[in-house]
Amino acid sequence: MAEAGRLNSWNDGAAKSAILDFVARVTEAGGMDFVPPAERVATFDNDGTLCCEQPFQTQGFFLFDRVKRLSANKPAMAERQPFKAVLEQDFNTLFGLGKQAIFELFMATHAGMTDEDFDGIARQWLATAKHPKFGRLFKECAYRPQIELLAYLRANGFKTYVVTAGGIDFVRAFSEEVYGVPREQVVGSSTKTRYDLTGERVSLMKIPELNSFADREAKPLNIGLHIGRRPLLAFGNSDGDLAMMRYVKSGPGARLALLLHHDDGEREVEYDREFRLSPLAEALDKADDYGIAVVSMRRDWKTVF
Amino acid sequence: MAEAGRLNSWNDGAAKSAILDFVARVTEAGGMDFVPPAERVATFDNDGTLCCEQPFQTQGFFLFDRVKRLSANKPAMAERQPFKAVLEQDFNTLFGLGKQAIFELFMATHAGMTDEDFDGIARQWLATAKHPKFGRLFKECAYRPQIELLAYLRANGFKTYVVTAGGIDFVRAFSEEVYGVPREQVVGSSTKTRYDLTGERVSLMKIPELNSFADREAKPLNIGLHIGRRPLLAFGNSDGDLAMMRYVKSGPGARLALLLHHDDGEREVEYDREFRLSPLAEALDKADDYGIAVVSMRRDWKTVF
Repeated sequence: MAEAGRLNSWNDGAAKSAILDFVARVTEAGGMDFVPPAERVATFDNDGTLCCEQPFQTQGFFLFDRVKRLSANKPAMAERQPFKAVLEQDFNTLFGLGKQAIFELFMATHAGMTDEDFDGIARQWLATAKHPKFGRLFKECAYRPQIELLAYLRANGFKTYVVTAGGIDFVRAFSEEVYGVPREQVVGSSTKTRYDLTGERVSLMKIPELNSFADREAKPLNIGLHIGRRPLLAFGNSDGDLAMMRYVKSGPGARLALLLHHDDGEREVEYDREFRLSPLAEALDKADDYGIAVVSMRRDWKTVF
Repeated sequence: MAEAGRLNSWNDGAAKSAILDFVARVTEAGGMDFVPPAERVATFDNDGTLCCEQPFQTQGFFLFDRVKRLSANKPAMAERQPFKAVLEQDFNTLFGLGKQAIFELFMATHAGMTDEDFDGIARQWLATAKHPKFGRLFKECAYRPQIELLAYLRANGFKTYVVTAGGIDFVRAFSEEVYGVPREQVVGSSTKTRYDLTGERVSLMKIPELNSFADREAKPLNIGLHIGRRPLLAFGNSDGDLAMMRYVKSGPGARLALLLHHDDGEREVEYDREFRLSPLAEALDKADDYGIAVVSMRRDWKTVF
C-alpha cells in the first residue's frame, strides 16, 4: 500500500523513511504490526504543525479583525482594555494584561452567537484574509508536505484528525477545504453552548464560558473523549503537543510521533524556545528519550507551501 | 441510490415510506433537497431506540454485576447503601435513594481505572451476559429493523452516530460489532479523565467526576461539540431525545425525526409514560406539532430481533 510518490514535497532522509517504514508496518497484511483500518488514527496539531503560526496563529489575526469590526461603532469598547491594546497593535501591553484579558478577547469574539453563525463569520473572513508576511490567503499558508502526508495516510486507511489548542469551531471552518479533514474530525478548545429555542427553532448558542482549553494534557484527554482510540501517529511542533505524542508512543505495537522543528528562516520562520505563544523546548530536548522523530523544515521539506 | 430491499424487517406503511422518501430526496443528485455525502449525518439514541431497555438498560445490568463482583471481597461495601440495595435487588429502595446514590454507583463501577481497562471489562461482560427475559446475549437484543436502517443510511452516504445518555465508554465497547458504528461515532455521558503518567507510560484515568450527563438538551449540545454538524435525521424513543429531534427538525431542507413507540407487549414490552428510567410523554403528545414521525413497533416492524 505504500505510495511514496505522494510525498513529493518531502526530501529523502530519516524523517521520510520513518514515515514510510511506519506506514508499511501497520498496513502489511499478516505482518506483526498490522493494524486493521478501523483502528488507524492519526492526530495532527494545527498551528505550527499544519500551517504557519508566526507572528500569530491564524485565529489571532481573525480575533484582531473581529475586535476592529465589533468596536467600530462602540467607542467605549475601543477605549477599554484589552480591546484598546488590540486596536493599537500594542502586543507588549496586550500580553502583559495576562490570561484573563486574552480570555475576554476570545469570549467577545467567539461567543454570543450560534455555532452556525460563527461558522459563517469565520468562513467569510477566511475567504479574503491574507497573511501579512506571505501575502497569500491564510488558507494557503498550510504546509504542502503536511497536506500530502494527511492524504498519504488516508490513502493507507488512516482516519486523520486535527487536535488543536485553537478553537474547534474556527478550525472546523476550513479543515475540510484545506486539509481534507471533515469537521467532525477536529478536536479543539471550545466554549460552552446553550440550547436555544427561539420560536420553534433550536440552535446551539455559544456562551462566554470555557468548556475545554485543549492544550498539553488536555489533548490526549480530548482524544479519549472524541475519538476513543489511542492514535498510531501524532504530529506536533511544540511542548503543547508533548502529552499527545507521549500518549501515542505509550501504546503497544508500531507508533510514530513526529515533531516539526521550525529551523527554516529563509522559507518560513526560525524559532523554538523563545516563541511566547507556543514554545518548543522540552519536546526538543527529550525527543530522543521519548522516541520522537524530529522533522527539520529546512532539511526534510522540499517545498514549504 | 434507494435500496429499499435492505429494510426487510420493516413493514410497508407510513414510517417506512417516510424513510425511503426522505433518503431519496437528500440523495437525488440535482434535486432541490440534495445534500452532499459529507453532510449526511444521522443520530440515533441507544437504549430503547437501538436495543431493548427493559426492565433496565444494558448498562444497568452491567452495573449490577460489577457491584456484585466488586463487593464480593468487601463486606463493608456490601452492607452500605446504595450497594446493599443493588445486591438485594431492592429497586424501590435503590431509586428512593435519589440521584446521588445512582451517581455513586456509576462512579464506583465506571471510574478508578483507565478507559482502556474499562473497555476490556465491558467487553468481557458483554461476551457472555444474557438478557433475563429474552435469554439471549445483550448484544443480540439490538433491534433488527434498526440495524438494517443504520446500514441502509450508510449505503446512502450517511455517517451514522449513536447519541446516548448512557456511558460513552460502555456503548463504545459494542457499537462497532452490534451496530456497525465505530467508537469515534459514539457520543454519550462521560466521566472526567486524568492524564496519568506511570513510569514512562501515559494513560487516561477515568476519575469519579461527571464530565457530561448527555440526556435531553445535552444531546444537541454534545452533537455540536463532537460532530459540529446539524444532523439530517434523528431517531429516539423518549422525552430524553426530544431536544435532539427538535434540533434536527429546525434545520433547513429535508429533515427526518423518528420516534419509536414501544407498543408491542407480545414481541417486546409495552410502555411509554410510566417508565421511570426514560419516560415518553411530551414527545408522543407533541409529535404532530413538531413534525416527528411515530414508528410503531407493533405495526411497522416485521421482526423485532
